[in-house]
Amino acid sequence: MSTNKMVKSDIEIAQQSTLLPIKDIAKKIGLTEDDLDFYGKYKAKISFEKIHNVQTNTDGKLILVTSINPTPAGEGKSTVTVGLSDALHSIGKKVMIALREPSLGPTMGMKGGATGGGYSQVLPMEDINLHFTGDIHAITTANNALAALMDNHIQQGNQLQIDPRRIVWKRCLDLNDRALREIVIGLGGPGQGVPREDGFDITVASEIMAVLCLASDLQDLKLRLSKMVIAYNYDKQPVTVGDLGVEGALALLLKEALKPNLVQTIEHTPALVHGGPFANIAHGCNSVMATKTALKLADYVVTESGFGADLGAEKFLNIKARSAGLTPSAVVIVATIRALKMHGGVAKNELSDENVAALEAGLENLKKHVETVERFGLPFVVAINRFTSDTKSEISLLQNWCEKNGISVALTEVWEKGGQGGIELARKVLDVIENSHPAFKPLYKLESSLEEKIRTIIQQVYGGKDVDFSAQALKQLNDFKQFGWDKLPVCMAKTQYSLSDDPSKLGRPRDFIVHVRELKPKLGAGFIVAITGDIMTMPGLPKRPAAYNMDVDDKGRAIGLF
Amino acid sequence: MSTNKMVKSDIEIAQQSTLLPIKDIAKKIGLTEDDLDFYGKYKAKISFEKIHNVQTNTDGKLILVTSINPTPAGEGKSTVTVGLSDALHSIGKKVMIALREPSLGPTMGMKGGATGGGYSQVLPMEDINLHFTGDIHAITTANNALAALMDNHIQQGNQLQIDPRRIVWKRCLDLNDRALREIVIGLGGPGQGVPREDGFDITVASEIMAVLCLASDLQDLKLRLSKMVIAYNYDKQPVTVGDLGVEGALALLLKEALKPNLVQTIEHTPALVHGGPFANIAHGCNSVMATKTALKLADYVVTESGFGADLGAEKFLNIKARSAGLTPSAVVIVATIRALKMHGGVAKNELSDENVAALEAGLENLKKHVETVERFGLPFVVAINRFTSDTKSEISLLQNWCEKNGISVALTEVWEKGGQGGIELARKVLDVIENSHPAFKPLYKLESSLEEKIRTIIQQVYGGKDVDFSAQALKQLNDFKQFGWDKLPVCMAKTQYSLSDDPSKLGRPRDFIVHVRELKPKLGAGFIVAITGDIMTMPGLPKRPAAYNMDVDDKGRAIGLF
Repeated sequence: MSTNKMVKSDIEIAQQSTLLPIKDIAKKIGLTEDDLDFYGKYKAKISFEKIHNVQTNTDGKLILVTSINPTPAGEGKSTVTVGLSDALHSIGKKVMIALREPSLGPTMGMKGGATGGGYSQVLPMEDINLHFTGDIHAITTANNALAALMDNHIQQGNQLQIDPRRIVWKRCLDLNDRALREIVIGLGGPGQGVPREDGFDITVASEIMAVLCLASDLQDLKLRLSKMVIAYNYDKQPVTVGDLGVEGALALLLKEALKPNLVQTIEHTPALVHGGPFANIAHGCNSVMATKTALKLADYVVTESGFGADLGAEKFLNIKARSAGLTPSAVVIVATIRALKMHGGVAKNELSDENVAALEAGLENLKKHVETVERFGLPFVVAINRFTSDTKSEISLLQNWCEKNGISVALTEVWEKGGQGGIELARKVLDVIENSHPAFKPLYKLESSLEEKIRTIIQQVYGGKDVDFSAQALKQLNDFKQFGWDKLPVCMAKTQYSLSDDPSKLGRPRDFIVHVRELKPKLGAGFIVAITGDIMTMPGLPKRPAAYNMDVDDKGRAIGLF
Repeated sequence: MSTNKMVKSDIEIAQQSTLLPIKDIAKKIGLTEDDLDFYGKYKAKISFEKIHNVQTNTDGKLILVTSINPTPAGEGKSTVTVGLSDALHSIGKKVMIALREPSLGPTMGMKGGATGGGYSQVLPMEDINLHFTGDIHAITTANNALAALMDNHIQQGNQLQIDPRRIVWKRCLDLNDRALREIVIGLGGPGQGVPREDGFDITVASEIMAVLCLASDLQDLKLRLSKMVIAYNYDKQPVTVGDLGVEGALALLLKEALKPNLVQTIEHTPALVHGGPFANIAHGCNSVMATKTALKLADYVVTESGFGADLGAEKFLNIKARSAGLTPSAVVIVATIRALKMHGGVAKNELSDENVAALEAGLENLKKHVETVERFGLPFVVAINRFTSDTKSEISLLQNWCEKNGISVALTEVWEKGGQGGIELARKVLDVIENSHPAFKPLYKLESSLEEKIRTIIQQVYGGKDVDFSAQALKQLNDFKQFGWDKLPVCMAKTQYSLSDDPSKLGRPRDFIVHVRELKPKLGAGFIVAITGDIMTMPGLPKRPAAYNMDVDDKGRAIGLF
């Protein structure tokens, strides 16, 4: 997250940190060894029994971290989440973190890890960024087992009369692999299945990831799995997992993955890292199981939603919070001088140069996200995530602008200083929690039509003018209403770079139209996905993937992982 | 494995067994908690440091368990392996098991688990048969990351001049999925990759599985990965992982998977369950790391190779033992009355009826495998794995035949009685080890041509007449010689049901020709695969997959898993 080349890399800092045995971290939040399944010395899953037993505890306060529209390098939202938690921990609060677990696809491609950075990281970062406790592999397996069972059903007589031209269930891999976006399978003759079009999504876009993240327990998981629509039959009626009768097998494959993963920060704050849908192509929040369990175990829980407030926070508030009955006590909006300058028109390679005018122009982006959070009725603090290239004049401008607008703001230096760099933010967040009366409400009613819900998000969250549906989407709106699916919330799939559906429109675009290309029923997750613009559910690799720098030494230590 | 419907199922017996904490099992073989990475309470990986430190220990005796050609239900080879080990354990020997880890594909399809059966099982069987410690998922990920990196290289300018028509690296999944055998990828236009033919193998057939199983340490793993051939360029020259430069990233993805997994039997005998290539389409042995580590930690190590002696044992002895410098002290050949009757011409649904004449005719199959083991210069014991349907006359006939031919034989009842049912076998194996002078040698010299090596296996192991190469295979023989690959051992891909390449030829077929359709260079594994008959590297699912019976209860316990 720093632009200073002399400082240590994230992995160097991580490898030089001393971890406590995870059983000692567990002790801080009242968990014994019997409540845990260990995965090595520094990772553990929490048992279903323990989760059941803490249900009578009082809930802690939930703090949601979001951001402005990010640069491709990200805003350091995870870093601020970790740093804020470490700051609360250091001033004696009983605090836990609830983060998403990273996808391997971007790790092998270009993105930094999802475990924070500098001195604000969750550890062991190598494990968390690689296979971790296998949750995502379990999801990949369940997703593809379902696909194989469906294709086998068709091959073996097709009792359900599934139309191979109308299959909506795709296969998936936890990789960036553009060559698998559009494929034809079942070639080679009658013994090799039925030829049809297919494609792979990245696993974090699989409905099973969303189901795992929204399920309240094993039974709810199974129920949600059974509701997933996999295809339409020759009468154009939906066919579900329940019709195929394999929700039990899928739940069996997912039973361990459903248990939240306990790890720690560099400063030994307990963290649950569990579930990881992307916020641009999925709902972008960690699991309900982890968030709710953390609220039962700690007085303060800091959680993060993906990308800007237009994506992750909107979905956290309209989908996850509504479905799970959560109410955040405060929101933190992370902003960086660099990203604000980018929104003010500065090119990527000039973001390290002072540019007060561009910064001022870019503030429009922050302003929109502030308005959005206010619309949800939630108190908030703006956190300036400081980079070494930020100048005093730039920081003053941002601080003054916030103060002038009555916005609580804190300069954070958590990347460089860990929790000590987040004390001001922690105090302002505590202040906001104590002195505000959150009046949280989702922005739309479930009773509204899908079209109205989408329009509400575009107008109230993106600041756009209206929606334009493709012919396919219009037909789907009608079909979905016939099927009784129009009372579900909407999960927007949209670029993270712009408030609009055009990634090149930075700052605060106005009067734009958002183009909805296609709708996807996700009845297990309990929402309808609206695909906008060119958003793709399987990323590609860059010209020189990060994988080329990776290696492992003789003792098994990771090299070149960030 | 039993045909008696009144007895408990494998999973019932497993769930009613009391496991010891894995640290207590580890203690028996001199391992402390510091030597282990725990995966839950009953599974652990052994650290590289510990493996390195025991290298100066004296090696124990290695016992290889193989069998006659099996029925589709298997012969209970894993069950005998576990039962024999428990028997040795119960008579005070320091013993360990080295088994393969099961693939999820057949588990969701039709096969019984690979963890033994009845009272001779390795535990926790649910975990081992599902995701276990994630080794196979790591292999799937590395395999497909390599494919994605290769396709990305082609998309981003193709500096290596890879010919998309001559790519040999396939993608893989740990599932039975016939629809993925032959596919076309990269469709949808210039932004979606280069259109080409592709296909998925089951992960256990991936060369990376073979590499992981044959690697001696992390450095050797990386070296082997770098040698893997992924394609040919437009000049028809091989392109390797080393040329692409991603062996470091792949090794990083595999570093935890390379550590052997420690578990226990129902009777608390320590077992390493690690690596799991199929023996029909791959080399069919558990990992060298596990076998060699077990030999350093115990006085007796019982290991199993897949399917009959024509497949797993042939490859164990000609490939794994040669490459790793292993010499078995004794071989156990598992036979069942049921399978012998099948080889004598009895239909599958009549195997429970007494049929002495058919049994006598079927003995020919056992005789051939006995001859094969003798050819390798190894002492052996025939183990009769008793089923409840076996009659006294049938058992007597088999025992008498063995005695008449000077063959050491033991009736085992390990399914029903655990180690106590294998005491006779244990004593006979110990007797053979003490009183024989094994003169083990592989059946062919590496200096022979690929054609001669294949002919040797067909004549000396299968009892066939000769080999017939397809036009493609003939061309490949010539190409591979040009590339200097002809001095490698051969890994035959052949049906497990017959000594020939035709699964319908039971008993002891003679004068048959084996048809080699295609050769595949596996330079990382260090062998050339010869594909015979109709053998497929991606299985399909049956009409009613086992998955339909699977479920999980509210507390997370598996239902319907065998």
